[in-house]
Amino acid sequence: MARRRIGEFELIARYFAPLAKGFAGARGLESDNAFLAADPRHDLVVKTDTIVAGVHFLADETPELVAQRALRVCLSDLAAGGATPYVYQLSLSLTHGWTERWVAGFARGLGADQRRFGIVLCGGDTTGTPGPTTIAISAFGRVPRGKGLGRDGARAGDELWVSGTIGDAALGLLAARGTLKSATLERRYRQPQPRTTLGPRLLGVARATADISDGLLADAGHIAAASRLAVHIERDLVPLSADARRALTVKPALWANVLGGGDDYELAIAVPPRRRSALLTAARAAKVKVTQIGAFATGKGVVLNVSGQPSRIAQSGYVHF
Amino acid sequence: MARRRIGEFELIARYFAPLAKGFAGARGLESDNAFLAADPRHDLVVKTDTIVAGVHFLADETPELVAQRALRVCLSDLAAGGATPYVYQLSLSLTHGWTERWVAGFARGLGADQRRFGIVLCGGDTTGTPGPTTIAISAFGRVPRGKGLGRDGARAGDELWVSGTIGDAALGLLAARGTLKSATLERRYRQPQPRTTLGPRLLGVARATADISDGLLADAGHIAAASRLAVHIERDLVPLSADARRALTVKPALWANVLGGGDDYELAIAVPPRRRSALLTAARAAKVKVTQIGAFATGKGVVLNVSGQPSRIAQSGYVHF
Repeated sequence: MARRRIGEFELIARYFAPLAKGFAGARGLESDNAFLAADPRHDLVVKTDTIVAGVHFLADETPELVAQRALRVCLSDLAAGGATPYVYQLSLSLTHGWTERWVAGFARGLGADQRRFGIVLCGGDTTGTPGPTTIAISAFGRVPRGKGLGRDGARAGDELWVSGTIGDAALGLLAARGTLKSATLERRYRQPQPRTTLGPRLLGVARATADISDGLLADAGHIAAASRLAVHIERDLVPLSADARRALTVKPALWANVLGGGDDYELAIAVPPRRRSALLTAARAAKVKVTQIGAFATGKGVVLNVSGQPSRIAQSGYVHF
Repeated sequence: MARRRIGEFELIARYFAPLAKGFAGARGLESDNAFLAADPRHDLVVKTDTIVAGVHFLADETPELVAQRALRVCLSDLAAGGATPYVYQLSLSLTHGWTERWVAGFARGLGADQRRFGIVLCGGDTTGTPGPTTIAISAFGRVPRGKGLGRDGARAGDELWVSGTIGDAALGLLAARGTLKSATLERRYRQPQPRTTLGPRLLGVARATADISDGLLADAGHIAAASRLAVHIERDLVPLSADARRALTVKPALWANVLGGGDDYELAIAVPPRRRSALLTAARAAKVKVTQIGAFATGKGVVLNVSGQPSRIAQSGYVHF
């Protein structure tokens, strides 16, 4: 059944050029380049992330949710940097057998998130691949000059806080695979909610941040490593959703998933104790719950306390290969 | 033969972090984000391009040349925009069975081009894929505020010039596949030479530009279309290398490859006649030959004149799907 496929230029004109409207620097995607106007008051924060069908998302996921995952994993990093998202570039490699219907859904997903997060497509490319559909997004955010946050910068004595609840996505992946039952958790896996309202409010409050994409222990460990410190985490303080708590009661072994699994896209935040109330004010304004779960200290590595028993653990998390 | 693979963080630390030295905003690749400092005098020019093994490069190409192709196709677009390259982000999806040796060669190729073109890695990500190795690069260049060049902007009466020689890469692909014999042409295909010295010198000289990546007729057509004009090209004026001329003498049907094949990475330049001498001065300074091959006129489409006979041709070129 050889069906005529629309070409790259038609695809761009029909589905992607409309997403670049409202940003003059994209030049309607008719130029190969995007032009980002000089902005003396802001640094640009850039994050590239790649997702591959069957590896980073379920091969049968809806195109809307695939598009939103590709975007949101980048927006989550920008949020951790304290940046307000701005524009993005899209590299879309379509697997053999792609349909125009799939691309239309993908573009719809992008469009909905553009409105939700106030961002605009500014360029990129589309191509075919004999492999699985692969999407790389480079997202650009703005942060007041010199103020960007990173993993480094935490100091001994800083508290470790996290946003939202932890482990829902890892349990949600089990739900998506049918080995656990919870529509709430499944949605948390399928549709990440980057903390874009909280991130920029952490400027002047947090000393270091990371988004929790590789898993709580891994990402808290990344802050510790980049800041040349140890981090101590109290497992009993880790905030859990009602469904996650229920799953853990039935099967305590799922703690490994909760602490080691990825894809939460919450923020891990290092805050000096004297800025605790500023953090709470920021969180309230962002309408995001934050919880203190530990602290940074001199030393190295991640120490997990379970009911008062410390256990030094290897820095772990999602393994990309 | 299960061999231990190094993980993503080790891979980054060993091969990619050294490529980010010398650019503070990359934060040693220890932050997820890159920070590009505010620059009030320049606009940022951004280009993303994706290459897939077996589609955009030969699956058995050396990793050094794969890295350089991935980078240079983006640098070519930046050159067309008049931009001076600056930093880049790398999305590297490694096929199953990748070896550390391949990654080492890939990083070596990037390193050599960083020195050659004065650019630095500022971020990105690496992941595994069950498909072919796929590389997306987002390259950033700088152009004096408001001066960036694009495909649009040509006016009726402007001359069409090209840099270098045309068609070598398309013939070089035949050479790489063994159906034609020429080491020179093969090299022109395997290792593109983006016109980074010429591009920034076209600011204030050219009205519109494109790099020739889809083929001369297609890319000249893109300038015409974006500028709402027709473009007339004299085939007999198209500059050819000695090896290309020889191949065409033996087999004139190869003109289709020369005019329609892609990957030349020369520049197509729309210049008003009164700026012709400025163009020649710019080309001399850049040590690049330029040749006038046609002109823009009111109307639509691409008109190819062959020995005085006009033939209106469909806008064609490399088809990406």
